[in-house]
Order: sequence, then C-alpha cells, then structure tokens
Amino acid sequence: QDILVSTQAQYERAADEVEAGNTIVLADGEWRDFEIVITGEGRADAPITLRAQTPGGVILTGQSNLRIGGEHVVVSGLVFRDGYSPTGEVISFRRDSDDLARNSRVTETVIDGFSKPNRTETDYWVGIYGQNNRFDHNHLSGKTNAGVTLAVRLNTEESRENDHRIDHNYFGPRPNLGSNGGETLRIGTSHYAQFASNTTVENNVFDRTSGEVEIISSKSGGNTLRGNLFLRSRGGLTLRHGDGNLVEGNVFLGQGVDHTGGIRVINQRQTVRGNYMEGLRGTGFASALTVMNGVPNSPANRYVQVVDAEIERNTIIDSTRITLGAGADEERSAAPVDTSFASNLMSGQGEGPFIRVDADVSGIDFANNAVLSGVLDDAVADLPRADSEMVRAANGLLYPTDTALADIGVPRDMRVLQLSDVGIDWYPKPGEPAEFGSGQRIVVGEGASALLAAMAGAQDGDQIVLSPGTYEIDRTIPVAARVAVSGSPDGETVITFARPTLFELQTGGGLRLSDLTIDGAAAPDSSANAVIRTSTMPVSGNLAIEMDGVTVRNLDVNSDFDVIYFGASTLADSVRIIDSTFTDISGTVVSAASEADDQGRYNVEYLDIEGSQFRNVRGGVADVYRGGRDESTFGPHVGITGSSFVDVGEGSGASLTLHGVQRTEIARNRFESSAPIAITHTVGVPVTALSNNDFVATPEPLLTEMNYPGEPRVEMVDNTYAAEVGQ
Amino acid sequence: QDILVSTQAQYERAADEVEAGNTIVLADGEWRDFEIVITGEGRADAPITLRAQTPGGVILTGQSNLRIGGEHVVVSGLVFRDGYSPTGEVISFRRDSDDLARNSRVTETVIDGFSKPNRTETDYWVGIYGQNNRFDHNHLSGKTNAGVTLAVRLNTEESRENDHRIDHNYFGPRPNLGSNGGETLRIGTSHYAQFASNTTVENNVFDRTSGEVEIISSKSGGNTLRGNLFLRSRGGLTLRHGDGNLVEGNVFLGQGVDHTGGIRVINQRQTVRGNYMEGLRGTGFASALTVMNGVPNSPANRYVQVVDAEIERNTIIDSTRITLGAGADEERSAAPVDTSFASNLMSGQGEGPFIRVDADVSGIDFANNAVLSGVLDDAVADLPRADSEMVRAANGLLYPTDTALADIGVPRDMRVLQLSDVGIDWYPKPGEPAEFGSGQRIVVGEGASALLAAMAGAQDGDQIVLSPGTYEIDRTIPVAARVAVSGSPDGETVITFARPTLFELQTGGGLRLSDLTIDGAAAPDSSANAVIRTSTMPVSGNLAIEMDGVTVRNLDVNSDFDVIYFGASTLADSVRIIDSTFTDISGTVVSAASEADDQGRYNVEYLDIEGSQFRNVRGGVADVYRGGRDESTFGPHVGITGSSFVDVGEGSGASLTLHGVQRTEIARNRFESSAPIAITHTVGVPVTALSNNDFVATPEPLLTEMNYPGEPRVEMVDNTYAAEVGQ
Ligand SMILES: [Ca+2]
Ligand SMILES: [Ca+2]
Repeated sequence: QDILVSTQAQYERAADEVEAGNTIVLADGEWRDFEIVITGEGRADAPITLRAQTPGGVILTGQSNLRIGGEHVVVSGLVFRDGYSPTGEVISFRRDSDDLARNSRVTETVIDGFSKPNRTETDYWVGIYGQNNRFDHNHLSGKTNAGVTLAVRLNTEESRENDHRIDHNYFGPRPNLGSNGGETLRIGTSHYAQFASNTTVENNVFDRTSGEVEIISSKSGGNTLRGNLFLRSRGGLTLRHGDGNLVEGNVFLGQGVDHTGGIRVINQRQTVRGNYMEGLRGTGFASALTVMNGVPNSPANRYVQVVDAEIERNTIIDSTRITLGAGADEERSAAPVDTSFASNLMSGQGEGPFIRVDADVSGIDFANNAVLSGVLDDAVADLPRADSEMVRAANGLLYPTDTALADIGVPRDMRVLQLSDVGIDWYPKPGEPAEFGSGQRIVVGEGASALLAAMAGAQDGDQIVLSPGTYEIDRTIPVAARVAVSGSPDGETVITFARPTLFELQTGGGLRLSDLTIDGAAAPDSSANAVIRTSTMPVSGNLAIEMDGVTVRNLDVNSDFDVIYFGASTLADSVRIIDSTFTDISGTVVSAASEADDQGRYNVEYLDIEGSQFRNVRGGVADVYRGGRDESTFGPHVGITGSSFVDVGEGSGASLTLHGVQRTEIARNRFESSAPIAITHTVGVPVTALSNNDFVATPEPLLTEMNYPGEPRVEMVDNTYAAEVGQ
Repeated sequence: QDILVSTQAQYERAADEVEAGNTIVLADGEWRDFEIVITGEGRADAPITLRAQTPGGVILTGQSNLRIGGEHVVVSGLVFRDGYSPTGEVISFRRDSDDLARNSRVTETVIDGFSKPNRTETDYWVGIYGQNNRFDHNHLSGKTNAGVTLAVRLNTEESRENDHRIDHNYFGPRPNLGSNGGETLRIGTSHYAQFASNTTVENNVFDRTSGEVEIISSKSGGNTLRGNLFLRSRGGLTLRHGDGNLVEGNVFLGQGVDHTGGIRVINQRQTVRGNYMEGLRGTGFASALTVMNGVPNSPANRYVQVVDAEIERNTIIDSTRITLGAGADEERSAAPVDTSFASNLMSGQGEGPFIRVDADVSGIDFANNAVLSGVLDDAVADLPRADSEMVRAANGLLYPTDTALADIGVPRDMRVLQLSDVGIDWYPKPGEPAEFGSGQRIVVGEGASALLAAMAGAQDGDQIVLSPGTYEIDRTIPVAARVAVSGSPDGETVITFARPTLFELQTGGGLRLSDLTIDGAAAPDSSANAVIRTSTMPVSGNLAIEMDGVTVRNLDVNSDFDVIYFGASTLADSVRIIDSTFTDISGTVVSAASEADDQGRYNVEYLDIEGSQFRNVRGGVADVYRGGRDESTFGPHVGITGSSFVDVGEGSGASLTLHGVQRTEIARNRFESSAPIAITHTVGVPVTALSNNDFVATPEPLLTEMNYPGEPRVEMVDNTYAAEVGQ
C-alpha cells in the first residue's frame, strides 16, 4: 500500500499508522523545516518504506533531519541541502535513546553542504545506532562544520557487535577543517574502545575527504574495511582503538597532494593486506603506512602496543614515507611485536628516508618484501632491493614487469572501484573548484559604481579588469564568490575606500588582486581597519586570497590598520602574496591569529609570500597563531622567500610572529632595521628552516620551544648578520 | 511640477533632470536597497523637493540611504527601517566630497533601528556638511551600532561656521553601547577643534539616549544648545572642545536613573544659563554640573582651561553631584579662572558630597547662589544655605515658594518642551520595553516538543510555565524575544540537553529562568558547552538574563562547561542570579570576558548575584573583563551578596575575576576552600568595597591597580579570615 503525502501534517498521520509492508511516498518538491521521524515494526519480507515520489525529487531544506527507529525500515531517494539539522545529526538510525533502528537501511540519499553555518558547531551527518543496519549508495559531500561525517555509535550495548554495512557510498570533498573533528567516518569512540563493532565498510569512495589527519578512525574491534578508494584525501585510515580489524584491498591514490596518507596501525591482531598506495605525500602519522609504538600495558583508549599484526602484499609506490615504530617516546616505548611484514612491494620518492624506523623493529618479521627505490633507515637497510619497470594494468594500478615479483604487492586481479560504482547516478559528483580567473572576463570602465556592480554580479572564477583611474569606494564590498580583480596595463589603477574595510570575505568568498594600487588614506580613523577582512557572520568553507603585483600604501590613519585580517572561526586554504609592495602600514599585513583559545584551530593553512617589499609596517608582516596541544591538523605552513623588510614590526615587536606553525621556510630575504622574527614551536614535529637571509640592524630570530625539551629545532643555514645598514 | 515615480529607474531619470521648483514624489510602498541621490540648484523661492507620496508612506528598507547635494533641496516624509546603510551614513548632507548641501532641509523623516547588524561597525545615521542646512522634526530611534547618531562635520572649510539648525527632533532610546562611539549628537571632532561651527541645536528631545558618557559632544566653537529636553538619559552634554558656546534653557530630568548627567564645561567663554536639572544621579564627569580642570597651555584638541565661563541661574535639584575642578591631576592642573557662578539654585541628595571640589576654586566668583540641601566640600562650605519648600509649577518644574529666591535658579516663565512638540505626529514614540513576565502566560504540558513550540512562538514579555517532569532537549533553543521560563510549584521541573548549548541568545533576546533545574549530564563532550550562550551571528541591542530559584548541576562532561557565556560584540544590560544553586560546574557561571582586545568594550553592564550557592565550580563564579584605557562608559557594575562559595575556582585560580569593573560590591558572602577573589583596577575611578565576607580556607583577595600609583583603592570592612574549615 503506497501512501502519497504532500504536507508535514499528512506525513505525520501516515507515519502514525504505518504498518509492515506500507510505503509512504513523499511528494516531489521542496520540504522546508521538516524533521522526519519514521519507526515501526517492519518485516524482512514486508518492510516499512519511506521514499521520494521520484528519486531525488524530494528536497529537504532549512532545519530538517531524519530519525529512524523500529526495524526493517527502508528510506530512499531524499536530498538534504540548503539548510542544516537543528539537532546533532542529519540522519539518525534511532528515534530516541529507547528506539534504535534494526535491520534498516538508508539508500540513494544525498546530504550536500547541509552544514551548520558556524564551523565550530559540531554535528554528525549520519549517526548509525542499533543492529544490522545498512547505509549504501548514498552521496555525502561538502561538510564544512566540525563533527564526523558518518559515525557508528557504540554508546549503548544494543549498538555493539552490530554487523552494520556501509557500502557503495560516495564521500565527496570535505574541506580542511583546521582543527580536530574533521573525520569522514568514525566507528566507535575512545569511551567504548574495548568493544567490538563488527562493522563492514566496503566499496566506498573517499574523494578529497581532507577534513583532518583521520579520514577513517576505527575506534573499535572486529571491523572490516575493504575495497574502498581514497582519492587525493589528506590524512589516513587509522586503526585507532580496538583489535582484530581487517583492512584489505583498499586503494589510496594521492596524486602528489600534500599530506595524503594511507593506513596507520595500532592495537592487536590487525590485518593489513593487499592495499594499494600510490602518489602519497604524507609523513609522520600520515605516512603511506604507519606502524605505531604503543604505551606498555595501555588501557584500550590510549595507545595499545601493536601485537600480531599481519601486513602483507601491499603495494606502496611513488610515496614519501613508511614509518615503523612511529610516535616512539618515553611514554610510547612498546615497539611492535609478533608482527609479520611480508611480500610488500615498495618504492619511495623524495629526499628524506622512504622507510623510517623510530623504534626497535626486532619484533617485526620481514619476509619476501621488495624495495624498488628510496632511502632506507639503517634498521631496515637489508630489505631486499629490486629493479623492475612498472606498467599500468587494465585495472589502473601499477605492476612490476619482472615476473619474479609476481607474488609481491597486490594481486593482479585486484578490483579497483570506479566513481560510477558508488553514490547515485542521478546526483552528479562534484568537479574541481573554480580557479581564480578561470571564468568570465569583465572589463569595467572608470568609476566606483561600475566596480561595485561588477563585484555584485561576479561568479566563481570571474575576472574583473579595471580601467586605469581612481576608484573611490564608499562601502564595504562583500565577496561571496571566487573573484579576481586586476588593474590595467594601460595605466595606474588606484582603489581608495572610505569605510574601515574595503573587501569583506563571506561564505564562498575568495579574492585575487593583481596589478593595482590600494591606498588607505581615505579610510576613517576607526579602531581596526583592514583592506580585506572576514565577515563577522559565520563563514563556512575555506577562503583563498592572492595578491600579485599589488601596491598597498597609506594604511596609517589609525594605529591598527591591517592589510588582511582573519576573524575567529575562519580558515583560508591559502594566502599568497607575490611581487607586491606594502608601505606605511600601521597594523599587520597578514593577521591570522584570532583563534586564541588554544583549541588547536587556526586561520590559514598555507601562507606564502614571495618577492615582495615591506617598508614601515608597524604590526609586522605576518602574525600566525595555532595554539593548544591538538595534533589533528597538518598546518599552518608558512613560506617567506625573496622579500625585503625595512622598518618592520616596531609596533608588535616582531617582523614575523609564527606560533605553532608546522612547516616554515624563510629564505633569501633581507631584514633591515626591523624587529626580530619570533617563532614558537608548540606541539608536533615542526619543520622550520631559515636560510640565506640577511639581517641588517635587526636582532637575531627569537626561537622558542614550548614543550620540546631540547634546543629549538630550527635549521639555520647561511644567514648573515650586520649591525648597521651599509655594513 | 510634481513628478511621481514608482521605481528606482524612474527616480533616476527624474533626479537627473530635476530643476528648481520641481517636486519628485516617491510612490507609497516599500523601496528596498534604494540609495537615493538628490542634488541640483534649487532657489529659496523654488526649492527642489523630494517627498513621500504620503508622509510615512514610503518605507526604505534593506541597504538604503540618502545623499543630498546642491542647494535649496528639501526632503520629507521618508521612513528608514528594516535595514541599514551600505555606506558610512544613512542621511548625508553631501552627494560626495565635491558637492555639499547648502540651504537644504530634511524634515519629517524617520530612522528607526536602521543599524548595522554588527554593533562594532560604525556609521553615522545623519552627517551634516555644507552650509545653512536644517534638520528638523525628524525621529531617530534605536541605534544599536557604534557611531554618532547625528554628526555635524567640519572636515572641510566649506562646512565650518555653518549656521546649521537642528531642531524639534525626537532622539529616541539609544541603548548603552558599552564602548566609545555611542554619542547621540556630535558637532565637530578633535581634529577640527579650533574652528567655529556656529550650529544651533534647539528644542529637541533626547529620550533615553544612553549610548555612552556623552549624549551631546560639542567639539567646536560658537554653538547654541537651547531649549532641549533630556529624559532619563545616561551621560551628559559636554562642551568638549571649542570656545564661546551657549547652553541655555535646557531641561534634564534623570528620574533617579543611574549615571544621568547634566552639563560639563571645558574651554573658554562658555555660557551655561537657565538650565534645569532634576533627579540626576551622575557623578564624576557625568555630574549634574561639571567644571573641568584644564591642561596649562593646552592645544585646542586636549583639555583647554575653563576661562571666562558664565554659569548662572541654573536649577539643580534632587541630584547627586556637582563637581568643580573635575579631573584635576598632575597634567590637568589649570583650575577654572575668571568664571562667574551666580544665582544658581541647588539641592543635593544621597550620602556623598553634593558639591565636590577637586581643585582650587579661587578663580570662580560665587555670587547669590542658594543651596537647599546637600553636603558641601570645605572649599564651598560658605555657599549660602536656604530653606524653602519646592512646588511644581504649571510648566512641570519645581520652584521655591520662598519669594526671596525668585531670582535664583531658572526663571518662572521657562518654557519646557513636550514630547508632542518634536518628531512626527504620524510616527509613534517608543514606550517602555517589555519586562520579563509582563506578557502572555503560556502553560506547557510535559515533553520537549511542547516547550520548543512555546519558545518558538514566544513574544516579548511572555511567560512559559512548564509542568513538572523532565524535558529532554535535543537542539539549541534560539531566544530572540524577552521570554521567561518557569517551573511549576507542583513538582520538580528538570531540563536536560543533548547539544553543547541549551539556549542561544540572539538579537532581541532576553531570558528569565525560575523555579526549575537544569542538568548538564546529557550534554556532549564538546570543547565549550554552555547552558546559555550568545549567538555567533551579530547580536544587536542589549540582552538580559535572570535566574531565580534555579538549580544548575552536572555541567562537567567536559572541562569548560559554562552556565552563561557571552561572546565578542555582545552586551547584556543586566545579569541577575538570585536564590539559585550551582553544583559541579567545570567552567564559569558567568563568563563575560570575550572583549579581550582592550578597546574598552565589555559584555555586561550590571551583574548581580544574591543569595545563591556555588559548590565545586572549577572556572569561578564570574569572569568579567573590561580592558584598555577608554573612559566612555560607566560599567561594568558587579554586586555579589549573601552567597556561599565552596570549592570554587580551582581551575581558573580565582573564585571571581573582575578586571576593569567600575563599581564592585562584594558583601555578606562566605568563601570556603576556594580560590581567591581577583580584582584588577584599570582606568577611571573604580569604587570597590568588600564587606562582611567570611573567607575560610580561602586566600585573601588579590587586588591590583594597573595604572593608579597608590595602594589598591578597595574598601575592606569587617571581613573575616579563617585558615581552616570549622575554625
Ligand atoms: Ca580526529
Ligand atoms: Ca565619546
């Protein structure tokens, strides 16, 4: 019996009376602010079904969600978008704590950008409770707020040893969250680390799921993670807690993207077999393969020693790092034991060690492996080398031509998942984001109103070209698309502005400025001005800023006039400043230090400054802050090269302030009559190098380690110091 | 010739061609996102007119504003509401910097709540430039963001000695801004302090214009401020810069409201004559009358010594303070000279000195004054006393019955402005805000959904009464009206919540909780939970929170679980906690310390805690922060009385943290096994008293002065100290 409903009231009446074998059909169209509850006692041969009239025809918007209780309930064909859940979950496999779903299924359902606007407010998009549920052929993409995308919950006994199956789903791009809480899939939590989940995760695609260091965090025992495909995803699959998990036949393709990782092994009786990793660039805990050291006699929710692991027939090629005994320190002193490492095919890239050993590996039994290339740490220097051409097979994977290696690495008949195997054919998978300048070219005549009109209408990728002249802007320009604004080669283009802020970055915003001059002389004497600032409204998604060939001058009508200012709860994927000139700035050129609550959040992932000139910048050129002890993130990364600093940092006491930055390169710069560089290392393994810089009438860099007990871990090469200008 | 226009395009064509004598008529209705520009050469006998089809029938909403250039332009009948200006002004008497208005007028126009949503973003509602313009019979009410309501600008020569007239306007309630920038009217700025403005401000009403310490800031010379009425407005009229101003015939009625002030005199040749002050409670710079000390040889934009002032025939009664030589210190050492203080009638109230003298007053010539009551400082102890009954005359003012006093104080025939004399008869003046519980009473049956539905529909003043039982709330409840929620006398009412926040205060929100229990045990282990928190969206207007007979317990699922948390750019007029109990809180009961950028902003004006019990509160009971050196505000005020603290403040190191609080009373409390009270004085003249408190196994209070050179200015009376519990 199909019951077609067109209003929430009709739905409620139908749902109240639904019985085994019934189907409730939601009429096509937009359903706004609809919190769907479906529960009842279906049967295997007569389930309770809730479906869209047409698959994809029902759009749930506003404050909507779905809760499923009872058993043998099947939901399909819904699309959640243009809104967010008012509660802690979008799709919940329980009606409430007394009514968990059993033998139920959600399929062909979409959650697309259905994120809480405030990125620090957490939720789960999918919470799976109960027993024997299936979540398959769904499309989840674009989660921008904190909280796991899909969580299997073990918080009550009825939800353990659950035999859930999560398969054929498309997990689409999840942008870098810039803090903990960006996992795409988590099974269990540390509170219930000692329990088995017995969940199967198979044949899913994880496409650019780069929320944090953990793409999948398995925090329970007995799980099977099989046949999944990871595409250009930062982070890795982590067997964080729980024993006896199987990780088999997964494919990780990093395509050279920073911090793309593979599998991290912790705990007992883990099997990692027949996985294929190619083009991964992760190191440390995000290595292509990481085998951790444990804490002796660790409780289940700390770091359990690796015992009885079986790591066999994996192929790891064109990758940067394998780490054995990772995380070894005074506390994590228990090296892996009774572990088999056999028939793995490996080839490294890059200058560092390909296989790095941080602890005793005598508890690992190496057999029948082959290393095609890469630097090996001494402890594994006797791993057998091989030399074979690699050829791409029909399944898309690389195999050695040397038949002697036929039984090393992944098998020839390995099946590789295709994008078309997962998700939903009626809902397209997202392509690449628009690059700056990839869209329409819009030439603007003289006059502020023409520029304002062009900005108001600009779409992602559009490039606005300004004619020569002066543009006197009387308002803050909102930027909610990825827009490039450039001057003209035919004469100077100058922008002045009469408000405290010239450009305000909002959700979806990105700004590239090139070949123009910005003059702050007309700005008011307010308390905190900026050329570019993030909105005080919540900003979802990540921002990007580029300045190339830009002159910024006269930001000195007040004492704290920044060029770029990031507010709390905002994150830029990148800030690039190239061949630009900054003169007479009372504030900071890049102020990315609003996340001061030491939760581990930060404002910019990559900051790069190249070939630029800074003169009389009182607040310093960059202030980047990542506080606290969280290690769920990879950044910030800062590169400052080929630039000159004169009279920089008198106000702040530092020409550059880098606190908690993870990768720092400062090279080939000249600092003259400036305040010192101030670098503070907090947690993690920061990589900091200063080379070929000239410091003239500028104090030496101030280097501080907050937690590491030794000398500051900073590589200082070929820097020069002169006490006075002209020396 | 009247030209009726119905669209923005029609308007633009009409405005392009407008000539002397033309009238453009805007059709009645809503005009959204309309930036009106009107300019042209009108003549005195043939002005250019822009008017609403029906006065008040044209509503400008969204991002709208009005710019007037040219001369003899008259605009009338417009209403700006439900939006804000995209630029720095709503109504501007210039089209741009080259086209200032002359001989032009805006009348019968309304700006109502047309505030930028972010309270720290500044604008002027009205900017008057040019020459000989008139702004009259307008209604300006409810500005909640920073920036002067009406500014007369002298920034170019064409705008000086301007003969503008500002008259018969209604300046309605302006809430406390909690920082500098809340002036209602400003004439000039310190940059142009040496110029004459020659502006007349007469017959305006300032009703509850309580944005900051200055209601009117006259920063130029030659102005006339006459016949205005100030009702219950915190702050005062300040002759901040410029000489030769006349302040005459104004009426200040404080009605006993805190910090209501009168007139502050600085600079040369000021005349303060025939003004009437009654019921004022201001002190310091907001005294009913303040005569400042100056800086010797001060430039025009510092503190010019009072010379040649004439202060005569003013009536100051039932008021707290007159201060002579105010602000005297090492720098401001030049006392008033050549000053006449004559025929003033004065009567004080309260315990402190009524006439306080902070400097040498030998340069003031006292003559024919009469003091009816009040304590006088020694230096003025010989002012003549009088004893006369006061009777209210037909004009509403109090006069002495003693005919010997007939020529002392304001004249009998003084005209007192009425509300009906100002503003617009077709636009009602705002009444009192809704008190908690003054509206509808809504009884809610058991169950979370009933409570959620009641909250969603609640209006200002409504009271929601919960039946006994447990309410399990699965979402954050937005609060955008002034709502009271109370339990039932028939049994315990318990609210639990499964999200990090239970109540989120938004613009317009206020919350009173009474006679119920809030239990945090079901809240998630997120990074920063709170029972009540302000929205991360901009919050305009001021908030209020009350808890009376409330039990809060088990806020300890994470390490920073607050009861009340105020985010940046939010201000509560008051937080009151009465007869309530707080147990096992990992965070802070009242966290009002987000304004950490030392701009002088703060989160709470009045915090009062009475008769409450605190046990095991790790973060402390209150954390109130007002940093920086700004002195434009009166608060925060903190009162903690009759309460008990046990095991409070272990996490934060302080049971109470008060930084920059201006008035503190901590009395009749018991502190046991708790961290010390930490009080830091920053600027101003903080009044801090600790009396009759018992400190048991609790360190003595930590008292710090940041700028004042002497011992901490804290009155400590009858406090007891015991080293151990049971002593
Ligand atoms: Ca994590
Ligand atoms: Ca002020």
